[in-house]
Amino acid sequence: MPVRTPDDLTAAVLAEVARAPDARTRELLGLAVGHLHAFVREARLTEAEFQQVCGWVAQLGQLTTASHNEVVLAAGSLGVSALVCLINNGQGGTAPTTANLMGPFWRDGSPATANGGSLVRTPGTPGEPVYVDAWVVDAQGLPVEGARVDVWHTSAEGFYENQDPAQADMNLRGQFQTDAQGHVWFQSVKPAGYPIPLSGPVGALLRAQGRHNMRPAHIHFLIHKAGYKSQFSQVYSADDPFLGTDVQFGVTEALSGHYRRHEAGEPPPFGQPPAPGQAWYSLEHRFVLDSGEARLPKAPISGKAEGARPVRQILERRGD
Amino acid sequence: MPVRTPDDLTAAVLAEVARAPDARTRELLGLAVGHLHAFVREARLTEAEFQQVCGWVAQLGQLTTASHNEVVLAAGSLGVSALVCLINNGQGGTAPTTANLMGPFWRDGSPATANGGSLVRTPGTPGEPVYVDAWVVDAQGLPVEGARVDVWHTSAEGFYENQDPAQADMNLRGQFQTDAQGHVWFQSVKPAGYPIPLSGPVGALLRAQGRHNMRPAHIHFLIHKAGYKSQFSQVYSADDPFLGTDVQFGVTEALSGHYRRHEAGEPPPFGQPPAPGQAWYSLEHRFVLDSGEARLPKAPISGKAEGARPVRQILERRGD
Repeated sequence: MPVRTPDDLTAAVLAEVARAPDARTRELLGLAVGHLHAFVREARLTEAEFQQVCGWVAQLGQLTTASHNEVVLAAGSLGVSALVCLINNGQGGTAPTTANLMGPFWRDGSPATANGGSLVRTPGTPGEPVYVDAWVVDAQGLPVEGARVDVWHTSAEGFYENQDPAQADMNLRGQFQTDAQGHVWFQSVKPAGYPIPLSGPVGALLRAQGRHNMRPAHIHFLIHKAGYKSQFSQVYSADDPFLGTDVQFGVTEALSGHYRRHEAGEPPPFGQPPAPGQAWYSLEHRFVLDSGEARLPKAPISGKAEGARPVRQILERRGD
Repeated sequence: MPVRTPDDLTAAVLAEVARAPDARTRELLGLAVGHLHAFVREARLTEAEFQQVCGWVAQLGQLTTASHNEVVLAAGSLGVSALVCLINNGQGGTAPTTANLMGPFWRDGSPATANGGSLVRTPGTPGEPVYVDAWVVDAQGLPVEGARVDVWHTSAEGFYENQDPAQADMNLRGQFQTDAQGHVWFQSVKPAGYPIPLSGPVGALLRAQGRHNMRPAHIHFLIHKAGYKSQFSQVYSADDPFLGTDVQFGVTEALSGHYRRHEAGEPPPFGQPPAPGQAWYSLEHRFVLDSGEARLPKAPISGKAEGARPVRQILERRGD
């Protein structure tokens, strides 16, 4: 059937896609073509704009290396990563979930640390002391004992150890096991938020929207035990000025972490006491595992980067 | 407003996109986010599938170089390039158009050739002789005089000169001027179709669909004159077995070129006669220019590639 009109063309493409022998491939490609073509039509995308979009997509891949993924950064900046997470957890998006984005900085093999221990491996790491209690429960609210809990977060300057020559290997990282109450506890320093890189097409995307490029401060968790779906999570600092405008759209109500401030002199619940005269924070959070497959992905990074801290640039949010 | 559900999340992303100060950016990003999120929801895209899609997109850019554009190849293979062409020509897609894809092989500066001349610059270039008459008219059907017409096509083996050490520089390329009747005419050899490269993510896409990777034989035209929208076109061989299944979805009814076969001994309309005993073809086609801006893009290639012909691989179409 010869193509005469744009509608004929879309029908021809859909007919080709419908040849795929695998049912799921057929479904995914059919929906992808449908939405791509609908976008072009509804936007009345011009030839010059089409060339620009092609150039933007090419740059995404050209900037993606073993240690930086501009494609995932773009997906996050358009809320796609967060949406994929929400619809695949919490009973298919119908219930709150503590699952969240993996992020680009999980390292496998963080140091096994006893409950009550510290993530601070570089003596004198600056920052306000924080004492964290985390509980892991199943969908029925029962404690999950013997789960592996990886924890990692930035320094008070907003750098992960792998980005920062001033931090020892594995500083602010650790691996814990839940006790019979599903409980892990550790001390550390309160993390800071940080800007995502602007050097590529994601920077252009954010500038075009008048958005900033900040992630609010957060602590990452990975919870892993046979019989449960492995869960990446992030607990965000509810007192962070960027909590409501996370450039990666990761923040949900279920992941707002409410730090409690304690005055100097008040004894901490466990571990090393803060320096004299030093106020400190406590944080409690509860993670709910879904049943499912315990499976760990390949870690996005495997060690410390060479050289200096990455140069950082912060975009101002327009009109705020 | 804290995000609780997938709908909250999409609303939050759309609110950010709506900050864009430029109205067209706002419109394009709003539609893009709407369709991206709708795709994820309707497909119920899994976390593993999302990772696969991100990897596929990264490969598109990683394979894109100064001489190969895998992004454009993918857009063509999903019919997006052809759709953009159709809605931006022929009175916004409501009327037939002779505009078509530029393709990756246009070179600027083809040899100026008098009407009636030949594109064959390598003596003995194999192939069946063809005599082409092309007319250029405006939207009212009146002849367009003095238009520049670039012509380029593959050999009978399906290689452009820039891919083929056996062909001289600029073989099967030429630049003509329309006369007072809007007419150009030239002789050449009948081109062959060819496979697009399969080494990258486009190959994976086609394999997953059970599609072949062939383009039907075609002759490219570029028509350029001040006061008219510059038009890239391709005239496809109606006798090509892949006419109905062009992997790039470029073929339309308006661009099916009907070659007429002439028996040996019949005198050709102009130029050098075919070899004794050699049958030959004639082709007539009419191009309609829209009024608009005469503007030439940057040529995608600038010269001959070094080394041997590209290695070619042909996918069989499943189930035919």
